[in-house]
Amino acid sequence: MTLTANKTNVEEQAIAAKKAAKSLSLLTTEEKNEALLTLASTLEEQFGNILEANEKDLDRGREKGFDEAFMDRLSLSKERIFDFANGLREVSELEDPTGLTVSGWTLENDLDVAKVTVPLGVIGMIYEARPNVTVDATGLALKSGNAIVLKGGSNAITSNKAIVDVMHKALEKTKIPKEAVQFINTTDREATQQLFTMKEHVDVLIPRGGGALINAVVNNATVPVLETGVGNCHIYIDKEADTKMALSILVNAKTDRPAVCNAAETVIIHRDWLAENKEQLIETFNKYNITVHGDEEACAVIPDCTPAGEEDWANEYLSLDIAVKTADTAADAINHIEKYGTKHSEAIITDNKETAKMFMTLVDAAAIYHNASTRFTDGSALGFGAEIGISTQKLHARGPMGLPALTTVKYMMTGNGQTR
Amino acid sequence: MTLTANKTNVEEQAIAAKKAAKSLSLLTTEEKNEALLTLASTLEEQFGNILEANEKDLDRGREKGFDEAFMDRLSLSKERIFDFANGLREVSELEDPTGLTVSGWTLENDLDVAKVTVPLGVIGMIYEARPNVTVDATGLALKSGNAIVLKGGSNAITSNKAIVDVMHKALEKTKIPKEAVQFINTTDREATQQLFTMKEHVDVLIPRGGGALINAVVNNATVPVLETGVGNCHIYIDKEADTKMALSILVNAKTDRPAVCNAAETVIIHRDWLAENKEQLIETFNKYNITVHGDEEACAVIPDCTPAGEEDWANEYLSLDIAVKTADTAADAINHIEKYGTKHSEAIITDNKETAKMFMTLVDAAAIYHNASTRFTDGSALGFGAEIGISTQKLHARGPMGLPALTTVKYMMTGNGQTR
Repeated sequence: MTLTANKTNVEEQAIAAKKAAKSLSLLTTEEKNEALLTLASTLEEQFGNILEANEKDLDRGREKGFDEAFMDRLSLSKERIFDFANGLREVSELEDPTGLTVSGWTLENDLDVAKVTVPLGVIGMIYEARPNVTVDATGLALKSGNAIVLKGGSNAITSNKAIVDVMHKALEKTKIPKEAVQFINTTDREATQQLFTMKEHVDVLIPRGGGALINAVVNNATVPVLETGVGNCHIYIDKEADTKMALSILVNAKTDRPAVCNAAETVIIHRDWLAENKEQLIETFNKYNITVHGDEEACAVIPDCTPAGEEDWANEYLSLDIAVKTADTAADAINHIEKYGTKHSEAIITDNKETAKMFMTLVDAAAIYHNASTRFTDGSALGFGAEIGISTQKLHARGPMGLPALTTVKYMMTGNGQTR
Repeated sequence: MTLTANKTNVEEQAIAAKKAAKSLSLLTTEEKNEALLTLASTLEEQFGNILEANEKDLDRGREKGFDEAFMDRLSLSKERIFDFANGLREVSELEDPTGLTVSGWTLENDLDVAKVTVPLGVIGMIYEARPNVTVDATGLALKSGNAIVLKGGSNAITSNKAIVDVMHKALEKTKIPKEAVQFINTTDREATQQLFTMKEHVDVLIPRGGGALINAVVNNATVPVLETGVGNCHIYIDKEADTKMALSILVNAKTDRPAVCNAAETVIIHRDWLAENKEQLIETFNKYNITVHGDEEACAVIPDCTPAGEEDWANEYLSLDIAVKTADTAADAINHIEKYGTKHSEAIITDNKETAKMFMTLVDAAAIYHNASTRFTDGSALGFGAEIGISTQKLHARGPMGLPALTTVKYMMTGNGQTR
């Protein structure tokens, strides 16, 4: 099934979203929260319609022979839909990120200056076949006073359409115009391309998914982009690392949830530490079924080690595979991370505070850990509530992005005739 | 004279800048400030070399027949160079925007979280033939711990090269590596294009100049961009506007410095106000030699009014020309601004607070004024000290950008073996 969209459709949707964003910006926090609660209860009431639609996506997925992990992300259940609803309820309880005065002062001429947070306007959300993003992103967008244009992965299109239909029905009962949630109902890549350049109507694009999707957006968009999520994270075990701590962090960062972006993909090990701790390291790899891809020196001591090449250093395995790199100094580790890291999360394990400080200053990433696992780079782990993604770029927002990342500021100036 | 650059050169420069940025990030505030003071005194000592180089650019400019305003911006003098030096001294006195803990907390498991400001890394500055930007941008970049790659307008290339040579000599006497200031010494557009896509080595591009330059960067860059400066600013005179205040603000916003981006380009006038105040309005236009381009209704009452078309509503005149649009309601004014505004600075003149509130909420711009001139959208007017430009985009920084806009944040996590 391929639906087609023409430029006019997508543009009309973006224009409608922009218009709806204006109405939305006039609503009170209470009105937005009530709407979120209505969305939540309507999703629960109509979960059957969504499951029915989801079956069609699952059937097509099975025909196409997608792997288990993919099918799992695509698959919905009553319980999952109720979880989505509860997620919306949680967002309704978070502080409204708009209307906050970041700073305010009065000039000598009595002109009042207030720097106030306001919604971005229209968010273009481009994501893979994960229907949960349809609900999560909509909740965060509406709470922060933004309209949203949703372009989900083609393999989840029937589920996403059903979810959006339910949300539209729910919004009709609220103060939020249903046009604030636009769904691009096509598998045509052209439609996505059009979103990339609609600077007049779309304020930001948020791609959420793998590297290919993110690069496609970054390389083709003229609309500003908030990059999220690719994590080629490293653990550097320094020569002065505590053995037990290093192994415990390594195991956690690699095996706790290997498929998430804050999992470790490469461990860089100081040569001296490796020599002293090789037995325990090998035992740990075996115990946790970790597959090792190592450089020459690592493979010389670790059994069942596959020689690692460029592609390993750059790989986000998202599995129980790990690349093992040996280093002579902390500076070697820093340079390796500079070359292959994705500016997500990086850790150093050492008892030496000076080495740790140098690592934390010179490594360029959203989050740097001294003696802790990279797994904490996560909105809920850090106490942000829901997150729209983890920014791996430097502008606007870095690291886990909660509601404040979906706002900008406006200088509101109030005078009585001031001129310059 | 056309110098050529090949990809390797520009890339090598960007790589050198990235490396220098690392050294720079380890310096103390005092070391950076000392370097700025050395830059200042060296510029003063060697002003003669710079003036000599400037003569060559001026000669070429005269041959090419550039207008007076252009030649004025290009032209240097001992006094102007000493002003640049004093600008650097002022920057040395501003607070260091890096190393500040934005927020910090401890998780239940004792993991310390600190969100700390850090330099962006490498700034690519793309600007027109204004040699002052070479010094100003370098000072702000270095103070905030960033390396800078300078690509100035071709017509100032000899002056810029001389300024950079002096700065390089000065930096040799400081802790800042001279590689932190890179100058693309070519008039070849290819070199600029290369900068646009060097995501690995350049962290942000800041175009400063006219709309064509900014669009060229936005449309071609994959490196994130901080848009600056184009200002098609409006004054809306509501039916409930005080006559004297409205005319005084209109005159200030249009005539104080017509060539700057926060000057007004269009005045939108409520029909009722126009009917009541037309004599005084006409008298004001005459008194200040303002050339009027109006819609049908405006031209019906204002003598010497040229009929305005689409190009007038979108025009940043930067002169004593003004477009005059009549409106039935404040909503009309808001819609006109939505269509033609550049999200810079917009003003409403009214005694009605409700109307003002609606205007301030619904108009999408960096700065919104109630009963004041748009001319205050300026770093020095708002007390920010020096500014790198005025952001007209919504991400990262909006409005006048001082030193903090040249930083990002890093989450610094300190633990004792925490896993999740």
